[in-house]
Amino acid sequence: MTSDMTQIFSEFIGMTILVLLGDGVCAAVNLTKSKAQNSGWIVIAFGWALAVTIAVYIAGFMGPAHLNPAVTLAMVVNGSLKASLLVPFIIAQMLGAILGAVLVWLAYLPHWDVTEDKDLILGTFATAPAIRNYPANFISETIGTFVLVLGLLAFGANKFAAGTNVFAVGGLILAIGLSLGGSTGYAINPARDLGPRIAHFILPMKNKGDSDWAYSWVPVVAPLVGGLLAVALFSIMN
Amino acid sequence: MTSDMTQIFSEFIGMTILVLLGDGVCAAVNLTKSKAQNSGWIVIAFGWALAVTIAVYIAGFMGPAHLNPAVTLAMVVNGSLKASLLVPFIIAQMLGAILGAVLVWLAYLPHWDVTEDKDLILGTFATAPAIRNYPANFISETIGTFVLVLGLLAFGANKFAAGTNVFAVGGLILAIGLSLGGSTGYAINPARDLGPRIAHFILPMKNKGDSDWAYSWVPVVAPLVGGLLAVALFSIMN
Amino acid sequence: MTSDMTQIFSEFIGMTILVLLGDGVCAAVNLTKSKAQNSGWIVIAFGWALAVTIAVYIAGFMGPAHLNPAVTLAMVVNGSLKASLLVPFIIAQMLGAILGAVLVWLAYLPHWDVTEDKDLILGTFATAPAIRNYPANFISETIGTFVLVLGLLAFGANKFAAGTNVFAVGGLILAIGLSLGGSTGYAINPARDLGPRIAHFILPMKNKGDSDWAYSWVPVVAPLVGGLLAVALFSIMN
Amino acid sequence: MTSDMTQIFSEFIGMTILVLLGDGVCAAVNLTKSKAQNSGWIVIAFGWALAVTIAVYIAGFMGPAHLNPAVTLAMVVNGSLKASLLVPFIIAQMLGAILGAVLVWLAYLPHWDVTEDKDLILGTFATAPAIRNYPANFISETIGTFVLVLGLLAFGANKFAAGTNVFAVGGLILAIGLSLGGSTGYAINPARDLGPRIAHFILPMKNKGDSDWAYSWVPVVAPLVGGLLAVALFSIMN
Repeated sequence: MTSDMTQIFSEFIGMTILVLLGDGVCAAVNLTKSKAQNSGWIVIAFGWALAVTIAVYIAGFMGPAHLNPAVTLAMVVNGSLKASLLVPFIIAQMLGAILGAVLVWLAYLPHWDVTEDKDLILGTFATAPAIRNYPANFISETIGTFVLVLGLLAFGANKFAAGTNVFAVGGLILAIGLSLGGSTGYAINPARDLGPRIAHFILPMKNKGDSDWAYSWVPVVAPLVGGLLAVALFSIMN
Repeated sequence: MTSDMTQIFSEFIGMTILVLLGDGVCAAVNLTKSKAQNSGWIVIAFGWALAVTIAVYIAGFMGPAHLNPAVTLAMVVNGSLKASLLVPFIIAQMLGAILGAVLVWLAYLPHWDVTEDKDLILGTFATAPAIRNYPANFISETIGTFVLVLGLLAFGANKFAAGTNVFAVGGLILAIGLSLGGSTGYAINPARDLGPRIAHFILPMKNKGDSDWAYSWVPVVAPLVGGLLAVALFSIMN
Repeated sequence: MTSDMTQIFSEFIGMTILVLLGDGVCAAVNLTKSKAQNSGWIVIAFGWALAVTIAVYIAGFMGPAHLNPAVTLAMVVNGSLKASLLVPFIIAQMLGAILGAVLVWLAYLPHWDVTEDKDLILGTFATAPAIRNYPANFISETIGTFVLVLGLLAFGANKFAAGTNVFAVGGLILAIGLSLGGSTGYAINPARDLGPRIAHFILPMKNKGDSDWAYSWVPVVAPLVGGLLAVALFSIMN
Repeated sequence: MTSDMTQIFSEFIGMTILVLLGDGVCAAVNLTKSKAQNSGWIVIAFGWALAVTIAVYIAGFMGPAHLNPAVTLAMVVNGSLKASLLVPFIIAQMLGAILGAVLVWLAYLPHWDVTEDKDLILGTFATAPAIRNYPANFISETIGTFVLVLGLLAFGANKFAAGTNVFAVGGLILAIGLSLGGSTGYAINPARDLGPRIAHFILPMKNKGDSDWAYSWVPVVAPLVGGLLAVALFSIMN
């Protein structure tokens, strides 16, 4: 049986891998002289999809591998996770996200000094809206996370796909990225956005600008709302 | 046991997700300032393939998840669905398709005003032929839907792929999109095309043009014909 | 039990679908005004991989779905197929390949007249070497088909992947296309190349040139050799 | 039962296929007049992911299919492989890697003379850092291989994915390539880098430069370190 501590550790390790690979693909595409520089949206979308898939694989034998506070909140409300694990899971997710961002910084160490665009540097860590309009950006992130959590709940209910759900999770992230990521960069995960934003704020980088705290609440609050809306709809569907 | 209402509701929810993600990827690639703008055919083709896959996953535990009037008609003719569900399924699919298009409009709200090309705006909702030639366009859509329905029927007959058919459906949509989508944009689904076209007609968008009703019958009628041809061939094969 | 005629019919139907989707993606990328024009090698490679995967799915419940004379010859030599089916299978594959090419011509009917480059038109039907050097081109096609047949034989021997082999076949075609397709366009299948070349020779197209019969023997003979080499190596491995 | 010799032979054959397909995709993208020239990072990343997947399939029915000295060392330390096989496995992997590189040279024979950039020629065989900084490059390769080996260990521990792990391995390579490959080209495998570098040194090519031996130790030593770190972490997790 998995103890609570194992599950919390699982969220920490999984989130570290998720952000290492997820922000890693942003570094690969954004940073000057990277071999993958400017390789486009298909690389970003596949990179994030696989980041989540691999993180779920690595964390998944120790716990439920939510790797997302919006999912954890939804699962507590849904009754799938006991409420006492809500705060410890979220703390572990945040710490993992920060560590993952530090590892990206290490993996691309010589590239920060040669990258001069501060928006690309911040964009490697945290999301920014394509067109800044907080209510509209909030709606976009809400819709994206709604689809994410609705999908996860439906996967659990499907009988025809047992054993292949981990691939379906990758497909779900890929779908959301390709289709709904164009407007806000699809954070759809409070820890994935806030953790690396904190890392960006702390880490030394020659050409970095500010960490855009004014926008930082959108990818934190909207995913929580989107996840709860999905739980509400699913309780009707199921 | 799933009641008729659950199945009809399943078609509605699934079609909403299908068009949200499917037209979503068109928005991502077409709209000005989208982070995925001009990211190309590979993004379109994967986006639509995953839109259908995820929609089938989400709808699939409540019903057969046709999510396409051409498939529903084929399955009724084939004897896989009782005839009394034909009309309710199609109505649910149409309503879901309209709602999905409205959600895309919401998810990309600030982008409509900055996008000036009315063809790109319409192309986000409904298909248009690369070269306008109604008989030829009709043939293209017929061939595409023929492959779609033949594939779905064959998947059902395969023993070697039980449990992974949902991935095969995604592969089938990807194949048709990559290979046969270049001439008409592969509607291969009356509701996927007509529903969003109605949404385009209704929704307020600064730079939108007309909804090209002259072409609208092609992606409605041709898929129905293609699906029936597939049923006919499959009855010989099986 | 599947009769011989069902299996032969399976090769015909499967090969029709294979070439419809495979040459279809070449049409999508090559032809003027196609929505996928110039969308690149990733589209070509995924398009062909899925063409084979979907064709195997559609043909696979009626027969072994070789869909390739080089595979059929290898399987006869290997003892997996009775010798009396060699010639009927190959005839069915050739006829299917010609029909598939005719369907591509139909699906992209208005595009042939607006496409002026005769190499792109021929390239939609049959392969041509990047650098014309018959011995080197022969080696490339031999190596490609060697990997194809070795992979197929190994998939059959694997216990860990039962039920997912059809996906593995898609991965194998994708791998060969991405990695070994740059020099000759990876025919790796005599019928896939010769059938559509015959269709190109027959079909009326305004701007078509000759059918390059001088090269046509390379993608016919080399794949047969490559397949036999794989059978030889596999008999040592197994 | 598989004897030691069968397993060693499996490493040799698998590594040959791995480098044939892996360096093959580098040739496809790098070499002048290749049909896939300049087709970008998505082609490189998918090509390498499928190279490993197909190699594991082909070698996997004869042995554990490590196909990587860093994995073999980790598995010996982890207790999954008996120590007496360490050196024979690595020798077989090195010989296979050299043979694979020779096959790539054959498959693209006419392209070497028309390719004038010596860095692109070397880059087809072995990796080179985007920004030369040995300590930083060492860290990048260590992190990449750490994720690789941690993933492989976790896949083995997962119950929910039995039978589909071979696909997960492909996803893992794809993830590392997309996300962590931008800085050093992700050797993450001593034999994959050193074997082809030796082939580059030996093979006659008109425009080749030196084989960059000064960098050659990084993709040999760092992966060994990264793999051992993963074993250490996994022993805590498990």
